[in-house]
Amino acid sequence: MTDSRDNMPPTLHWVGSTDGHLRLIDQTRLPTELVEIDCESLESVVEAIRNLRVRGAPAIGAAAAYGVCVGLQSAASGANAKGDRAAFFKRLDETVDALAASRPTAMNLFWALDRMRRRANECDENESPGGILVKLLDEAKAIEQEDRDLCRRIGRHGAPLLADGAGVLTHCNAGALATVDYGTALAVVFAAHESGKRIEVYVDETRPLLQGSRLTAWELTMRNIPATLICDSAAAQVMREGRVQAVVVGADRIAANGDAANKIGTYSVALAAKAHAIPFYVAAPSSTFDLSLPSGESIPIEQRDGREITHGFGRQTAPAGVGVYNPAFDVTPAELIDAIICEHGVIRPVEKDGIAKVLGK
Amino acid sequence: MTDSRDNMPPTLHWVGSTDGHLRLIDQTRLPTELVEIDCESLESVVEAIRNLRVRGAPAIGAAAAYGVCVGLQSAASGANAKGDRAAFFKRLDETVDALAASRPTAMNLFWALDRMRRRANECDENESPGGILVKLLDEAKAIEQEDRDLCRRIGRHGAPLLADGAGVLTHCNAGALATVDYGTALAVVFAAHESGKRIEVYVDETRPLLQGSRLTAWELTMRNIPATLICDSAAAQVMREGRVQAVVVGADRIAANGDAANKIGTYSVALAAKAHAIPFYVAAPSSTFDLSLPSGESIPIEQRDGREITHGFGRQTAPAGVGVYNPAFDVTPAELIDAIICEHGVIRPVEKDGIAKVLGK
Repeated sequence: MTDSRDNMPPTLHWVGSTDGHLRLIDQTRLPTELVEIDCESLESVVEAIRNLRVRGAPAIGAAAAYGVCVGLQSAASGANAKGDRAAFFKRLDETVDALAASRPTAMNLFWALDRMRRRANECDENESPGGILVKLLDEAKAIEQEDRDLCRRIGRHGAPLLADGAGVLTHCNAGALATVDYGTALAVVFAAHESGKRIEVYVDETRPLLQGSRLTAWELTMRNIPATLICDSAAAQVMREGRVQAVVVGADRIAANGDAANKIGTYSVALAAKAHAIPFYVAAPSSTFDLSLPSGESIPIEQRDGREITHGFGRQTAPAGVGVYNPAFDVTPAELIDAIICEHGVIRPVEKDGIAKVLGK
Repeated sequence: MTDSRDNMPPTLHWVGSTDGHLRLIDQTRLPTELVEIDCESLESVVEAIRNLRVRGAPAIGAAAAYGVCVGLQSAASGANAKGDRAAFFKRLDETVDALAASRPTAMNLFWALDRMRRRANECDENESPGGILVKLLDEAKAIEQEDRDLCRRIGRHGAPLLADGAGVLTHCNAGALATVDYGTALAVVFAAHESGKRIEVYVDETRPLLQGSRLTAWELTMRNIPATLICDSAAAQVMREGRVQAVVVGADRIAANGDAANKIGTYSVALAAKAHAIPFYVAAPSSTFDLSLPSGESIPIEQRDGREITHGFGRQTAPAGVGVYNPAFDVTPAELIDAIICEHGVIRPVEKDGIAKVLGK
């Protein structure tokens, strides 16, 4: 068995020093083409996030951190390197605002932007723009490295939840491509697989943008992990046939009570899992939690263009004039989630006090 | 408000006399092109059913009845019109076998073929092949006309189940295109709409072949009934948001206990409806029942080519080599079905004795 991912570039990384740029896999081209693009302007980073060239809550966070650096280059280099701090901080605000507006649901985006802004504010008041940018690039690299590490820890914490021989169903992509490396939900699968367990993954194709068939199936195939692609609507039937012993998904934002927003369709999978008494797990880094929200009801849900559904394969598949409702996410209530796996451990049962305790808040 | 369906041809009809042919709407071309095709050979009828140019259990039944006539033409015309009865009945067997093998799940297919064969067997033993063919064409036309009538009756029986202002969710297409005219599940919607009730329909797009977005959304748009297209996986969320007050779907085969096979994804919708206490209705003609099967476990489920999922709409959307599981149907257990609406009335609760009573068996 060869592992084809040795030739796979990271989801995203920084090229060069402070005058460098963000390079990322253009995920809209997968699974048929593996192409990297270079983001050398703030606008190109915002465009890449908005149009899902980079997606997955942790990857969005890391991309946004580097996006802050890209956005500040003109205000911190050349003549400006030792120049106007006020202009630099004004540009920081503009940059953070532009990135924050790229997508509304992923908590990790706001978490990373807050962290970058805080790092800038912590700099000595005599620090030059050029000096602050050096520190911000270090901070973005720290976010990237931490993401690599915590995904491995999520894998280690979650792997014991999967039995040898288990069928595992997942929805959307919470794999290496949704993070800097290794993933969240798929980290659990990868770690179980690496520990010698035989795992078969049922992959929801995940309409409308097919992140399951395009990305998750591709990652599993690259790692030689048995994968079976199904239509989203077949998940309940596959469970009924006894093929699934656990569900593991990622999350884009988790409220203080454990309600978890994730790709549209996750809630439907959770209901089906409950009906078949199959454990339903959410795997996500602690940066996904938004403890300012008491429950999932206040999580903002991104509404996307109806053409993703009506013209999804480069071809019109619905009549002109039909109404379309295309929420990108739904919220799975905590009572349907058996455990949340984060880098600090397994939160079970999923309720406010247990979450606060594991997060140390 | 105009009703654009005045220009719409019937789903299928016979052209000419016994030397004529079956004409049907090629549903694979919708919603962008409304094209009729002429089936002048048995092979072309089998191909049209197998490749879903005509689909929907009642429409498959009517098409197969006409397919028997097409298949027998050479054995009952010209020199054979007054010729060899043995050769004619041998050809009848071949024709019925070929049509029966076109798709395995729709009960109405086998019901129509049985009825055509019975009609042939009932003919006087001195009847010539040409004479039997005349009677078989009459029988096929009777099946067609009965289907028109019973769909209207299904609509009348079902309409009172929908309240004014209701949001109604449906899966796949059980409309005029799934029958000769007017539909089964959509007949209920059409009849409620015609009675003056305001109905909004949430249309599951229905992967992999998108019968919801291509056909149901098209039919509703043609009739100016408010329709909102959603991804299949969004159905549970749409219910959670309080937008849906009833679910109505069709069926391809119903066992004696009320377990109902229908398009893959129906079971998932039924589970979500149950979780939200939304009534779930199945609308189907009595020819859909297979009382020889005690429960849904014995309903044969058609497995279709994985390329319907991996290469839907002319583009590769999954990596080469990934496994695919593509059952065309699933079975919704009777306990999730609040009522079955057939041409004889509303069967509620859904259980063996009530079904036998309404069907008069």
